[in-house]
Amino acid sequence: MYVVKSPLADADLKTVSEALQGALVDLVDLSLVAKQVHWNVVGPRFRSVHLQLDEVVGSARTHSDTVAERASALGVPPDGRAASVASGSGIATAPAGWIKDTDAVGTMVDALGAVIVRMRERMNATGEADPVSQDIFIGIIADLEKHHWMFQAEHA
Amino acid sequence: MYVVKSPLADADLKTVSEALQGALVDLVDLSLVAKQVHWNVVGPRFRSVHLQLDEVVGSARTHSDTVAERASALGVPPDGRAASVASGSGIATAPAGWIKDTDAVGTMVDALGAVIVRMRERMNATGEADPVSQDIFIGIIADLEKHHWMFQAEHA
Amino acid sequence: MYVVKSPLADADLKTVSEALQGALVDLVDLSLVAKQVHWNVVGPRFRSVHLQLDEVVGSARTHSDTVAERASALGVPPDGRAASVASGSGIATAPAGWIKDTDAVGTMVDALGAVIVRMRERMNATGEADPVSQDIFIGIIADLEKHHWMFQAEHA
Amino acid sequence: MYVVKSPLADADLKTVSEALQGALVDLVDLSLVAKQVHWNVVGPRFRSVHLQLDEVVGSARTHSDTVAERASALGVPPDGRAASVASGSGIATAPAGWIKDTDAVGTMVDALGAVIVRMRERMNATGEADPVSQDIFIGIIADLEKHHWMFQAEHA
Amino acid sequence: MYVVKSPLADADLKTVSEALQGALVDLVDLSLVAKQVHWNVVGPRFRSVHLQLDEVVGSARTHSDTVAERASALGVPPDGRAASVASGSGIATAPAGWIKDTDAVGTMVDALGAVIVRMRERMNATGEADPVSQDIFIGIIADLEKHHWMFQAEHA
Amino acid sequence: MYVVKSPLADADLKTVSEALQGALVDLVDLSLVAKQVHWNVVGPRFRSVHLQLDEVVGSARTHSDTVAERASALGVPPDGRAASVASGSGIATAPAGWIKDTDAVGTMVDALGAVIVRMRERMNATGEADPVSQDIFIGIIADLEKHHWMFQAEHA
Amino acid sequence: MYVVKSPLADADLKTVSEALQGALVDLVDLSLVAKQVHWNVVGPRFRSVHLQLDEVVGSARTHSDTVAERASALGVPPDGRAASVASGSGIATAPAGWIKDTDAVGTMVDALGAVIVRMRERMNATGEADPVSQDIFIGIIADLEKHHWMFQAEHA
Amino acid sequence: MYVVKSPLADADLKTVSEALQGALVDLVDLSLVAKQVHWNVVGPRFRSVHLQLDEVVGSARTHSDTVAERASALGVPPDGRAASVASGSGIATAPAGWIKDTDAVGTMVDALGAVIVRMRERMNATGEADPVSQDIFIGIIADLEKHHWMFQAEHA
Amino acid sequence: MYVVKSPLADADLKTVSEALQGALVDLVDLSLVAKQVHWNVVGPRFRSVHLQLDEVVGSARTHSDTVAERASALGVPPDGRAASVASGSGIATAPAGWIKDTDAVGTMVDALGAVIVRMRERMNATGEADPVSQDIFIGIIADLEKHHWMFQAEHA
Amino acid sequence: MYVVKSPLADADLKTVSEALQGALVDLVDLSLVAKQVHWNVVGPRFRSVHLQLDEVVGSARTHSDTVAERASALGVPPDGRAASVASGSGIATAPAGWIKDTDAVGTMVDALGAVIVRMRERMNATGEADPVSQDIFIGIIADLEKHHWMFQAEHA
Amino acid sequence: MYVVKSPLADADLKTVSEALQGALVDLVDLSLVAKQVHWNVVGPRFRSVHLQLDEVVGSARTHSDTVAERASALGVPPDGRAASVASGSGIATAPAGWIKDTDAVGTMVDALGAVIVRMRERMNATGEADPVSQDIFIGIIADLEKHHWMFQAEHA
Amino acid sequence: MYVVKSPLADADLKTVSEALQGALVDLVDLSLVAKQVHWNVVGPRFRSVHLQLDEVVGSARTHSDTVAERASALGVPPDGRAASVASGSGIATAPAGWIKDTDAVGTMVDALGAVIVRMRERMNATGEADPVSQDIFIGIIADLEKHHWMFQAEHA
Repeated sequence: MYVVKSPLADADLKTVSEALQGALVDLVDLSLVAKQVHWNVVGPRFRSVHLQLDEVVGSARTHSDTVAERASALGVPPDGRAASVASGSGIATAPAGWIKDTDAVGTMVDALGAVIVRMRERMNATGEADPVSQDIFIGIIADLEKHHWMFQAEHA
Repeated sequence: MYVVKSPLADADLKTVSEALQGALVDLVDLSLVAKQVHWNVVGPRFRSVHLQLDEVVGSARTHSDTVAERASALGVPPDGRAASVASGSGIATAPAGWIKDTDAVGTMVDALGAVIVRMRERMNATGEADPVSQDIFIGIIADLEKHHWMFQAEHA
Repeated sequence: MYVVKSPLADADLKTVSEALQGALVDLVDLSLVAKQVHWNVVGPRFRSVHLQLDEVVGSARTHSDTVAERASALGVPPDGRAASVASGSGIATAPAGWIKDTDAVGTMVDALGAVIVRMRERMNATGEADPVSQDIFIGIIADLEKHHWMFQAEHA
Repeated sequence: MYVVKSPLADADLKTVSEALQGALVDLVDLSLVAKQVHWNVVGPRFRSVHLQLDEVVGSARTHSDTVAERASALGVPPDGRAASVASGSGIATAPAGWIKDTDAVGTMVDALGAVIVRMRERMNATGEADPVSQDIFIGIIADLEKHHWMFQAEHA
Repeated sequence: MYVVKSPLADADLKTVSEALQGALVDLVDLSLVAKQVHWNVVGPRFRSVHLQLDEVVGSARTHSDTVAERASALGVPPDGRAASVASGSGIATAPAGWIKDTDAVGTMVDALGAVIVRMRERMNATGEADPVSQDIFIGIIADLEKHHWMFQAEHA
Repeated sequence: MYVVKSPLADADLKTVSEALQGALVDLVDLSLVAKQVHWNVVGPRFRSVHLQLDEVVGSARTHSDTVAERASALGVPPDGRAASVASGSGIATAPAGWIKDTDAVGTMVDALGAVIVRMRERMNATGEADPVSQDIFIGIIADLEKHHWMFQAEHA
Repeated sequence: MYVVKSPLADADLKTVSEALQGALVDLVDLSLVAKQVHWNVVGPRFRSVHLQLDEVVGSARTHSDTVAERASALGVPPDGRAASVASGSGIATAPAGWIKDTDAVGTMVDALGAVIVRMRERMNATGEADPVSQDIFIGIIADLEKHHWMFQAEHA
Repeated sequence: MYVVKSPLADADLKTVSEALQGALVDLVDLSLVAKQVHWNVVGPRFRSVHLQLDEVVGSARTHSDTVAERASALGVPPDGRAASVASGSGIATAPAGWIKDTDAVGTMVDALGAVIVRMRERMNATGEADPVSQDIFIGIIADLEKHHWMFQAEHA
Repeated sequence: MYVVKSPLADADLKTVSEALQGALVDLVDLSLVAKQVHWNVVGPRFRSVHLQLDEVVGSARTHSDTVAERASALGVPPDGRAASVASGSGIATAPAGWIKDTDAVGTMVDALGAVIVRMRERMNATGEADPVSQDIFIGIIADLEKHHWMFQAEHA
Repeated sequence: MYVVKSPLADADLKTVSEALQGALVDLVDLSLVAKQVHWNVVGPRFRSVHLQLDEVVGSARTHSDTVAERASALGVPPDGRAASVASGSGIATAPAGWIKDTDAVGTMVDALGAVIVRMRERMNATGEADPVSQDIFIGIIADLEKHHWMFQAEHA
Repeated sequence: MYVVKSPLADADLKTVSEALQGALVDLVDLSLVAKQVHWNVVGPRFRSVHLQLDEVVGSARTHSDTVAERASALGVPPDGRAASVASGSGIATAPAGWIKDTDAVGTMVDALGAVIVRMRERMNATGEADPVSQDIFIGIIADLEKHHWMFQAEHA
Repeated sequence: MYVVKSPLADADLKTVSEALQGALVDLVDLSLVAKQVHWNVVGPRFRSVHLQLDEVVGSARTHSDTVAERASALGVPPDGRAASVASGSGIATAPAGWIKDTDAVGTMVDALGAVIVRMRERMNATGEADPVSQDIFIGIIADLEKHHWMFQAEHA
């Protein structure tokens, strides 16, 4: 059906679109995991962690929108459906039920760490093929590493 | 571990918590489906539908937060993880790839219709057990039926 | 022509749509009457009454929009045309020409009182048929009774 | 009863007050017609027309307030009651029930056209008698003709 | 002296006005207790608890205003004077002097719990007599139970 | 010294600059008189009149700035110094000391009336010489006549 | 238990803390009295007095917070509990039930007058001991005396 | 193709449309010249002139939009393309390269002066044919002459 | 007629009211002088001085309102009429006509200097009689001396 | 005349300044073309396209300012005059007169496509010479390609 | 070179200028220390302390600006350069590297304590010489002592 | 003590952390120097330069925060203490005392020039080791070079 005349050559387009699709799935899952913990956290640091997690949710939602619209702009339809997220995400499944504040922080350190590793691979893979997409990954990493640092600092 | 002293009797609590958990899963999926169509819609009405869908996303996100926090307030941990959403949602799986604007509207008519039917059952089921939770369902239904009407009106 | 598949059974729909149409006509007329008095009031309390009336106008406009869109959402086309308002409203015709501030307050006490009586009948009539519409009437009554109290307090 | 010492001579005042009263009735009816269509429009362009109509409502309400307060300022009590609007308006009665988007646009082209013709006559009639009132008509015409163009452009 | 023509029958009015007066006293006291703890809390979680308490104060002040104005709108003069609050409140007297952050949280769990129990009784008592007042109680309970959950979650 | 190349012929410039200078003096004095009454009014309508007067002050200050900058734009230095205002204003000297609210309203009716008469003469005098300046007078008159109406309505 | 190292000598601290505690109780009561009258006032000046009282409430709440936190900052736990307010306030008990607008104004003239007298004594008492606290009293007096003037002006 | 039913007679329309088209071209060029100088100005008054020029750009853009949409509203397609602007503008070509602040001010005095002369001719030409369009020219002239004065004052 | 029960003794009241009345006249005149120069300044620094003067106008208007309302609050009717300002001000009469930017700055250095000297005398005179009024003078001086510094810095 | 000490070597500066000047001309023309279509579009999708085009205008104006100020910051005077834009732009001349909505979309697809191709060449050319300027081109391309996608999606 | 004619006598000026210069150095250093700890804090209370420190930074920056501009207004050039701050500050050097949250709170208790002692000395020293400057110190002390209390409360 | 697991290899980390620490010191000093000149500048361009400098302060504070938090995110504790800034900054010591506006501009041209040279070295040094940090330097340089151009343009 519909075809956007992509400004990229075919091989470059393949590289970039795989990176964008992978990032989309990770970021949507990150927003769901952070919300899950936001609702289930308990313990003396409840309020502080509860608020901090909503900032992660906000970041993840904004970045997933940017990534999906970039894919569309290059002519590749993005896939952010629940089943695709559940099967393709790089984040380990979060535990069910109430979660102590200490464990909540640990869960987020792991989740962010896993996403950052994969996002850096995408940044390296796309620099040649499309500097515009790479620039988007760079911005996302800077933001995720800042969140990562904060949860690590609290975990010290 | 942690126990909230619920203001409801046990039987009432069981009824209400099932309704809240079901609503949570439906609403998270509604937000994902609406985003999916927001990114993949094509055709002459692209811009209009693209914007309209983000209003559905906003509604669904707000309502899912209300529902999950109501569950927590009653002492029941909510579950909004990707796999739970993928398996428990009452919405049919959205198609992959580009979607014509006419089909996009139809998809949303169906998705909203399915959620509304289930949400009305929840409204009826919880009136006795907890009028506070019922009131939340009433507000959600009023909003979803308004979105539903608008997509139906466009589908005429 | 166009048909919305209403979520209500036929008998319920008849009850609810009559209530909504009646409310629409009352509320549009309330906004016109309040504006009429806003422009024609004279006397030492001019400024205070002039400003207070614009708050009634704002309430009436907002509620009429809610009621009309609820009718559409249930598949019933609302009718807010001038002639329908002139013939169907439950408010007595306001006097022509300048109106003393004391009489202006009395006019509003009467107008609001007439609308409230009819609106409470609609609230009672629709509870069984459609709790969602009833909830809208409840909210409107709470607001109108607050305006009513204020004009009565000034009339003491 | 109460008399404002009008800054205009009697003959001039008669000319101007007739023009203002006529404009008031037209503008209140324009706001009611636009709301009527706003609630009843259906078809693929539903959302776009639905939103556009609320901008006409906003314009008509603002202008009717300006015109009525100008009459009061000249010592002439304005009449914006429902029956006066229903009998005195220069706009043809809008049809009852659902209205296709194409017809909705046509209805607004006609309604705006009818008001503009009468408003230009008022502008010409009042220039000598009261340039201040004429200036108000000029501003209203500029705004209505802009709305008129937009509906005509969509009707092409 | 002054008489508002109440829209309720006498027996209904008695039920509703007692409920509203009781709620007013509880809510004013809740705002005073929360401020008292806001000023006197000490300990490592000082800042987090200090901020959270001001949100309770904001809620309590808003709800007390709604409840008092509803009483006035029904023709019953509300009583929110200091002595009436001191003698009629359902909240245990807060301790004087500095209060450890852990105890501060416990104090709020108890205070909110006591008010919620009484507020639910009022909700049940008024449903028949005046659904509009009942709807106000429902909204207040939803908000107080959310605050209650948060303090309980921190107390785990 | 400095000369702006005026877009007007000499005779026109003379007419227009006299009108602008006269308007400036009237408007500055209007702002001082309204402030004087704002500070000295007493009586049961104190608050209402006190607030209303500050709206006159705001109007008068804005208009005086427009008029003075128009003079400068035409190459004529405006004069708004205290002594020039005291000697050239068309408003009768306001009384010293406390002023009853009824008298305060009467003072403003007279002050506005006096300025409006002179401003209409200026509007008539400048239409030929400079329609741009005339348009400024028209806007000022519309605003002053609205304030005039309101004080007259309160004086009824 | 907890001790703030106060920057003041012991005798000075005693003087200042008594003044702050007295001011706190007066200001909390002032906010309760003003709200009480705000809800119960009736008569032709209802709206004007109703609005004005909420400005007193806003002032009193802000000042009570400043005063209480100043006490904490000096190491003295403040006491703003309902019973302490009821027994320690310098304001006469407000009457129960509806209150005519004229009496409402008189009540506020008296209440503000009583607080101002006591607040001026505190200002004089603390100048030597702690100029920082004295400066807070000065600002409060300036604000209360302005409110006092306005109610007196309305009482003329 | 598409025809708007113009509210003007043919001869009047010809006069008005030529005036609007001429104004459009002048105003677009004014915005380009002001930006050009904004970027290239140097000298001790750099910052002050740099900021002042952006206010001219803002005015010129707003006015060009008003003028072009007025043409469309009268049924005449406006032409604001680069080549049409380059050939039809009444402003002398601005110099290339850096421009001293003194010269920058002189350039703007000349550019505004040239546009004002032509705009006044348009105002005079259209008063009979269409007072609505004339009113737009009047507003534009008032604004341009204010900017003109300010640059002349700096050139003294 | 109307009497405010002043919180000050008679001798103190005389001292304070003379200081407040003197300050009122100076501050109103300062606002008129600054506006006069704002409209008449010419020269290369036109824009910078033009803007800076409006900040002085804003300060002077705010302070004059504070001072006049303080007088009323103490029971002394303030006098800010044009003739009182013209005869009582401590500022030398500003020159008529255009004024070079260098002279404009000098005029403001002198005007502010004259007001500051008198305002410091008022500060010293009122400390004993009414610390609240003195505190108002202190705040005004801090602000005027800051403006004074800025004009002096430009005059270097 | 004036010389900025550029941080770049001569050869690099030549490369970068040519790229910036070319980009400036393209972006100014893009803003003019989008406005031209904004004013002349007709057809059923009028409103949607009309609004969308103003977003392109906003983007193009912002980017042209960034690019021109970057040139100035590197010591190269930018040239954005009408004649330079008319002769140097890479966009085909837009058609005169009314334009159907379908053609309007096609015009924007072509215009954006042409600018994107040239902008990517500039991005590639400047990476070595000045990564800071390249980063600006990258940001512009990301934005233009997003606009391009949207118009292409509507053209499907 | 440049001389501001100071409103103070020489001896007074010496006293006041030393106090202001000392306060400037303390306050700049306070902002640097708080930022240093803001960046280096670690531990479970990381987020709470991290946010609280930025409020201290905001206070310290605002106060340092007030103090420096007061010195300039009195004719004394302030010195806020890095070396002057490093040598003249009354705050002990903050430790390098990561800092535990408990130690961070302790560091701020000490830093604020040291500044408050010196600031109270300045308040006492300047009351005679310049009440305007003294009033500035009073306001700063009130704010710093509030921050001090909060950190002490967390240190309990 | 606390260790962030850095995402960089050791050699890369050393390169990057030196660059970040150097940038931090330069940027904090830039903010202090700009404030110092902001307070001490004198001469006819005082106001313009005074305001422009606060924009540099804002930029420098924002960038220093970004740089310090990036260091923390990489596991390296930043050092922004007064003594470290005084000894490590690349900006020449600003002169003490009043500074003529011409010299003030020259001081800022030099300060910004010195920082830009060092910042470009850091951009080149870190591209390989950490593109995320490099991207931060690129953004800072673009901003500083824009400020640099503006001061140079004023120095022409």
